Amino acid sequence: MAPVHDCLVVGAGLSGLMAARQLHRAGFSVQVFEARPRVGGRMWGRTLPSGAWIDFGGQWVGNTHRRFRALLEEYGARRFPSPAHGATVLCFDGRRFEFRGFFQGFPEGDAPAVSPEEWQDAMAAWSRLSALAAQLSSLPPMDHPSLSAWDAQLFSDWIRENTRTAFGSWYFSYMVRAVGYLGPAEPHEVSLLHVLLGQRFAPQADHPEAELIHGGAGQIPHRIADELGRRLHLDCPVHRVEYSTESLTLESAMGRFAGRFAILALPPRLMDQISFSPALPLPRQLVQRHMKMGRCAKILVSYERPFWRNRGLAGIGIGNLPWIELCADSSDPEQVVGILAVFVAGERYTRWATLTDEARRLALLEDLATYFGPEARAPLSYDEVDWPADPWTRGAFAGYLPPGVWSTSGSALAEPVGPLHWAGTESAPEWPGFFEGALAAAEKAADAVATRLSNLGRLPQ
Amino acid sequence: MAPVHDCLVVGAGLSGLMAARQLHRAGFSVQVFEARPRVGGRMWGRTLPSGAWIDFGGQWVGNTHRRFRALLEEYGARRFPSPAHGATVLCFDGRRFEFRGFFQGFPEGDAPAVSPEEWQDAMAAWSRLSALAAQLSSLPPMDHPSLSAWDAQLFSDWIRENTRTAFGSWYFSYMVRAVGYLGPAEPHEVSLLHVLLGQRFAPQADHPEAELIHGGAGQIPHRIADELGRRLHLDCPVHRVEYSTESLTLESAMGRFAGRFAILALPPRLMDQISFSPALPLPRQLVQRHMKMGRCAKILVSYERPFWRNRGLAGIGIGNLPWIELCADSSDPEQVVGILAVFVAGERYTRWATLTDEARRLALLEDLATYFGPEARAPLSYDEVDWPADPWTRGAFAGYLPPGVWSTSGSALAEPVGPLHWAGTESAPEWPGFFEGALAAAEKAADAVATRLSNLGRLPQ
Repeated sequence: MAPVHDCLVVGAGLSGLMAARQLHRAGFSVQVFEARPRVGGRMWGRTLPSGAWIDFGGQWVGNTHRRFRALLEEYGARRFPSPAHGATVLCFDGRRFEFRGFFQGFPEGDAPAVSPEEWQDAMAAWSRLSALAAQLSSLPPMDHPSLSAWDAQLFSDWIRENTRTAFGSWYFSYMVRAVGYLGPAEPHEVSLLHVLLGQRFAPQADHPEAELIHGGAGQIPHRIADELGRRLHLDCPVHRVEYSTESLTLESAMGRFAGRFAILALPPRLMDQISFSPALPLPRQLVQRHMKMGRCAKILVSYERPFWRNRGLAGIGIGNLPWIELCADSSDPEQVVGILAVFVAGERYTRWATLTDEARRLALLEDLATYFGPEARAPLSYDEVDWPADPWTRGAFAGYLPPGVWSTSGSALAEPVGPLHWAGTESAPEWPGFFEGALAAAEKAADAVATRLSNLGRLPQ
Repeated sequence: MAPVHDCLVVGAGLSGLMAARQLHRAGFSVQVFEARPRVGGRMWGRTLPSGAWIDFGGQWVGNTHRRFRALLEEYGARRFPSPAHGATVLCFDGRRFEFRGFFQGFPEGDAPAVSPEEWQDAMAAWSRLSALAAQLSSLPPMDHPSLSAWDAQLFSDWIRENTRTAFGSWYFSYMVRAVGYLGPAEPHEVSLLHVLLGQRFAPQADHPEAELIHGGAGQIPHRIADELGRRLHLDCPVHRVEYSTESLTLESAMGRFAGRFAILALPPRLMDQISFSPALPLPRQLVQRHMKMGRCAKILVSYERPFWRNRGLAGIGIGNLPWIELCADSSDPEQVVGILAVFVAGERYTRWATLTDEARRLALLEDLATYFGPEARAPLSYDEVDWPADPWTRGAFAGYLPPGVWSTSGSALAEPVGPLHWAGTESAPEWPGFFEGALAAAEKAADAVATRLSNLGRLPQ
């Protein structure tokens, strides 16, 4: 007779790995199933021939990401401040500005030299948005009298009603295409409520991109996997989950496994491809069915030197260029190579992805030259990650719920179903879309499973 | 050594069945793989205890649906005019109108007694929309100078710019939530181009809902399946397709099958769940990845008699009630029972699907009472089909491409890849979203495969 494991974990991204590690360290028996031949999910990177490291997925550490900072310290991974010495470049409607500041919703430092009317337009709308966001008290959202109304209003309509200038309008369109938690999505793809939740529970004002990690975030999953050892099964997608009140069987590419509980730690869009028996409760089905993955590719471009610094630039570009609305300097100060992390998002992504390999590369280098100068056209290396094309992720940065789903079924994102618990950054009670959210969701699911195992009289072994 | 079949067909909906039947009748060897335990896909129905038949999926026959009409005649399935004797009911913003006419974009008969300003507003916009649609010449679309601009414009923005009254605005919102080909979708989920394509290649002016079939459309797939016999494999999902220039292997729940060619006849959203090796060309990946399935449930409500006729009503209700924007009389004149086919679409669907079983039923009966009178609250039977929850369809009526995809990758919907051909109503050159489209796509794919088999020197056996 096959053994019954205390907990089966599906998905070996950061969230699944850490949920498994927590239960394993507490002495419970765990097995982890990963569809890919590698661990890490959206926490993944590599080392270039130049010796520089790059992160294909997430890379930043926030000032208030306490779980993530503790994890990095545990593994001795050293952090450094994200490079930002020099001027930020803003390109808007054919105009080019250099300024000592930054904005992604939350503005800091000096303002760019757009007209005062344009800047005031954006800032006045930003104040209104912030005041609404402050009224929300939990994720998933509950108990606010305007919840349904905010969830029925497209963010594109809110922008139209709250801005008067083309710059003001773009300021918020850019925000939903650039900020981690929000998809990225186009403004018509999300509700006002979704944007408010992002600003409230993953606030840019907390500086979630404050630091980078020497060696990259991609080194971390391997460290956790080492500790799990033979409990981790790669190349092993899960097709079916049969469950009852307190037990379950999981069918995987390596056969059937029995468990007392399970933690499913993968994007809801992928959970929807698993056959559950009995069928999941309707609200849970709805969030899985309707949650979309952000349309975003990440491109890492390296140069012999961070040439932009010779021009007094910080390597941060923002603007409504044809392809790149956001790029950032990701160079390690202990190395000589310069690295730019580039994002192509929303409808720009969809158009860009149809181009040939060579056209995609030329298009991006041309935009980089507009931001930082002609040296941008001669990179040392160029690496694309087309996240929406990846069958085991289906998009980046994260999943988002379209209008009308948060207010009707959002609570199902985190609520256990019988022996099934949910993890992954999309299910997080805070910092959804970030590593910190993956850890918060893992901790919550593992705590709940540990409590239930103890109540069953299962003693850690 | 396993036999090499001339053509492997994936999906036993109307399109897959007919593609297989055509090749089989031409003497080629075919095998058909269907994930469900039944044939028919969205062509599916049953007989009620009262003896009346209902269609859970599509049900109507259009005046110009020549392929579908020929098929029905071949099987001796008799048609009758869709019941429409009496007045149509329109409920809009708390007002209730009875009128001798109908509209879904294309208006016919008398206009409802909304104010002349409201009606003229809708009609003026309708003329503009029709004039644009007439400029399109092929599906997938090509070679129109405004293609990209139309595909970048949200239909919700077009509505805002082209209507002045709340009624005019709703007229077009209702259209994208009610017309077959268009999703259904909310106006912000599709581009102007998508709506124009629908009006051009599946025109309501051709009366695609002119007739119904005695016994229902759901009887047809069984007739085709009988002819295919043991060549058809049910309960047999296909997981993986390996292909080269002129051959392929398919991995299914019943093992591996080898073929010279394949026809994949399932919604693109589901094709995206199959693992292809080598990876499909990028534009093909993009259409599969981005095509969404309409959010729509169909509910069949039967009554002892078609009571609405006693009030002089046609059993057709249109309006912005809380749940039902469209319902239609589907009673067979050779039976005594009255049947209403009810559609809950778009964001109404998402909210409705979260209600309990009993609340969903009460909500719909209340709206039916508003349209047709209190007798609506006491049905003989009530059957729901939640198409978005069905893992082997994922939505109804059909799939739709979001803004920016038609103009960049739309041609990949129908273009073969090596030995792989595509069918299903979403790939149709005309009448996409209808049975006629499923047949047109099947014919096109089977013709192409037959030609290529003949060129290989494969003689019909």
